[in-house]
Amino acid sequence: MTTSFPRFTFVLVWLLAAALTLTRGQTRPTEAVDLLVRGGTVVTMDAQRRVIPNGFVAVRGSQIVAVGDTADAGRYRAKTVIEAGGKAVLPGLINAHTHVPMTLFRGLADDLLLQEWLTKFIFPAEAKNVSRDMVRAGTRLACLELIRGGTTCFVDMYYFEGDIAEVTEAAGLRAILGQTIIDFPVPDALTPQMGIAQAERFIQKYRSGHPLITPAVAPHAPYTCAPETLAACRKLADQYGVPLVIHLAEADTETQTILERYGKRPVAHVEQVGVFGPRTIAAHVVQVQANEYAILKKHNVGVAHCPQSNMKLAAGVAPIPDLLAAGLAIGLGTDGAASNNDLDLFEEMDTAAKLHKVTHRDPTLVPALKALEMATIEGARAVHLADRIGSLEVGKLADFIVVDISTPRQLPNYNLYSTLVYATKSSDVETVVVHGKLLMRDRRMLTLDEASIRRETAAFRARILESLKK
Amino acid sequence: MTTSFPRFTFVLVWLLAAALTLTRGQTRPTEAVDLLVRGGTVVTMDAQRRVIPNGFVAVRGSQIVAVGDTADAGRYRAKTVIEAGGKAVLPGLINAHTHVPMTLFRGLADDLLLQEWLTKFIFPAEAKNVSRDMVRAGTRLACLELIRGGTTCFVDMYYFEGDIAEVTEAAGLRAILGQTIIDFPVPDALTPQMGIAQAERFIQKYRSGHPLITPAVAPHAPYTCAPETLAACRKLADQYGVPLVIHLAEADTETQTILERYGKRPVAHVEQVGVFGPRTIAAHVVQVQANEYAILKKHNVGVAHCPQSNMKLAAGVAPIPDLLAAGLAIGLGTDGAASNNDLDLFEEMDTAAKLHKVTHRDPTLVPALKALEMATIEGARAVHLADRIGSLEVGKLADFIVVDISTPRQLPNYNLYSTLVYATKSSDVETVVVHGKLLMRDRRMLTLDEASIRRETAAFRARILESLKK
Repeated sequence: MTTSFPRFTFVLVWLLAAALTLTRGQTRPTEAVDLLVRGGTVVTMDAQRRVIPNGFVAVRGSQIVAVGDTADAGRYRAKTVIEAGGKAVLPGLINAHTHVPMTLFRGLADDLLLQEWLTKFIFPAEAKNVSRDMVRAGTRLACLELIRGGTTCFVDMYYFEGDIAEVTEAAGLRAILGQTIIDFPVPDALTPQMGIAQAERFIQKYRSGHPLITPAVAPHAPYTCAPETLAACRKLADQYGVPLVIHLAEADTETQTILERYGKRPVAHVEQVGVFGPRTIAAHVVQVQANEYAILKKHNVGVAHCPQSNMKLAAGVAPIPDLLAAGLAIGLGTDGAASNNDLDLFEEMDTAAKLHKVTHRDPTLVPALKALEMATIEGARAVHLADRIGSLEVGKLADFIVVDISTPRQLPNYNLYSTLVYATKSSDVETVVVHGKLLMRDRRMLTLDEASIRRETAAFRARILESLKK
Repeated sequence: MTTSFPRFTFVLVWLLAAALTLTRGQTRPTEAVDLLVRGGTVVTMDAQRRVIPNGFVAVRGSQIVAVGDTADAGRYRAKTVIEAGGKAVLPGLINAHTHVPMTLFRGLADDLLLQEWLTKFIFPAEAKNVSRDMVRAGTRLACLELIRGGTTCFVDMYYFEGDIAEVTEAAGLRAILGQTIIDFPVPDALTPQMGIAQAERFIQKYRSGHPLITPAVAPHAPYTCAPETLAACRKLADQYGVPLVIHLAEADTETQTILERYGKRPVAHVEQVGVFGPRTIAAHVVQVQANEYAILKKHNVGVAHCPQSNMKLAAGVAPIPDLLAAGLAIGLGTDGAASNNDLDLFEEMDTAAKLHKVTHRDPTLVPALKALEMATIEGARAVHLADRIGSLEVGKLADFIVVDISTPRQLPNYNLYSTLVYATKSSDVETVVVHGKLLMRDRRMLTLDEASIRRETAAFRARILESLKK
């Protein structure tokens, strides 16, 4: 008996040691990451639309390296840990159409007929004020609003996109920036040829895999660009393999003009001219008919649906349920702040979900999940970046947001998608990460100086008002 | 020369003394008030739509006793002073149609066909859960959201309005509370006769000039109340001189039902039955034709326009520009949180301004000022309280809100009405005063305990989910 005692003890100690080793192996962080978000409801928007109630996202550098249950997050040792208990973690929202510098024209003129609005206010204001400095100031103001509202990527069309790129990069946002080409003289180009040259220089600077900025060419619209201008834009896009961004089939007047000039409706005209090609992003697409859906689908055109802008400017209601049924990728855009008047994708989701229901008298259309898809993974498809962003999956870029889902006006919260689309506001966004970098944490801005943006905005406000007196 | 010196000194001293006396007379506060808000942009919504850039509002007891330029506010000595520099001071917003306890059903079921939504979710949820306790909890949650979003007065239709009244009074909000009468058994009445009796007791309790609560009778709708029920409701309203609140001409199905049953469309049917009379408030009024506008106008029916609810439930678009042209008073309502899904009048203003533009393809319709009017002075007319609330004028009740107008997403702020309607969010509301009493100051709740409301809401959420499993 005496001999068996030490043997028994040995076995016991060995078992204990093994158990401890196993336990420590599970809890000791062994894998170093840069950022760990844990404890939140992770809304992956992956192919299975997985929602992980108590989930985590681990980030190394710019990439997501793990997504899962917080119980399995113990192996990650992170420099920065964000506790997201009671919050939702979502893919960053994608604004598929905007003109960021136009924030400086927000509310300058509203509730006017389109022609009056454009010719009496917007065009004169642009002619007298758009400069490199103005574009930079407007972009800074827009980036502040975009980040605070949970947008992590936007598609822009404006002038001086090189300056927009620098400010966007400094703010830390991701963007597809389309240098605008138009047939009349604009602040950064007297002719479309000069515009194309300008666009080419911009594309050359940013084309080789910039981490945040994707350069693009942006022929303004079929009614403001002659067929040869449009064709030159496509040629440039193909030469450098960059996206082409265009306003398409927005208002009735455009359809009439294009029909009169070319005997075709806008979509068919643009196809014939050869504008469609790889990575085309078309904004609005309101005045489009059933026989034109296949054209858009054939060329894999991404659609930037802008419900609030289309309502406010009275362009019409895009046939989104039909375009979805046709298999097109549809994202959501705010348009510029002069025609919306904000850059708030939570409102666009809510409006998109409601507008098509009433238009078709069918409350089952564009349910909450579909609206959220348009602002995330489907938006990523529409802007041809779905391989890199739009969902929370291993290998994708770390663009995500942490959103409060427990304010009184979101309760009781029976259905997360419904809460996010119908009851969540941009003010509920707390933390924003782009390319693995924190841009806002607990609503504190980390890359932009709000006070200086306010001063700059006030100075441009005075200058713009003065310019319109002359 | 020597004799003139003292004389000159005397004159000088006298002049100085006189000047000092005058100055002191101007700045010494002589008139005692309870509350003074100063330094803000006062948006009066009075008949002249005066906007006072650096204005003040002085309150004694429950009433506004002065409105003017802050330079003239020096005569008021106030117990409480609110510095509103850089903010806007607006009449409190009026929610002309809601069902406050339904906040507890927010997001329970969305994106469904109306019949399925009602019969599979809302009606069973109500049958199994609506109780005095539930109604009190839901009202508390709603009052929290209403106050935080700048609403100071609401028109309700639900069951157990006596309990809703007690909670509303404790929260400090103003309300017109309509005890619902309906032809089928409901949680607080097995028959419409019992409902009428219940309504009468409620009215008797609150009718004699309660400072905050106006009792009302609320026949649910023409398709859920027989003509005799509707007539009994009007009789009760007339007997006590209280408002009558009703859902009217909301969906197509209602029109069909009423046509089949009575051979008339809803508005004409309701008129024939004699429902219209003094202080009628009709919610929705979507399915209404040109020849019916005069009927509504003749009876001075106030219309509660609910654009977001009508969109989400796919009821249709109310002909608001035509109803405005017909001279009807139109307010804005959110409807219940189960069908919107929030109680946010800033969003309803924005949506109302945009929805009619796109419906009629006219961007000049429902301009920003008109939308703000619907949420304030015209809303007050629609709910028959324009002699007491809806504008900031001497003699009116002190119901007002202080709203930040300087967040980055509101800048540059060229036009105040545009900023308020198109770029201001409920999260910008900082301070809320009703009947001269502060309910929220700098976003701190003063009458409601948010933590206990959260606990109560969580408990009812669990109970409601459990009830639907059975």
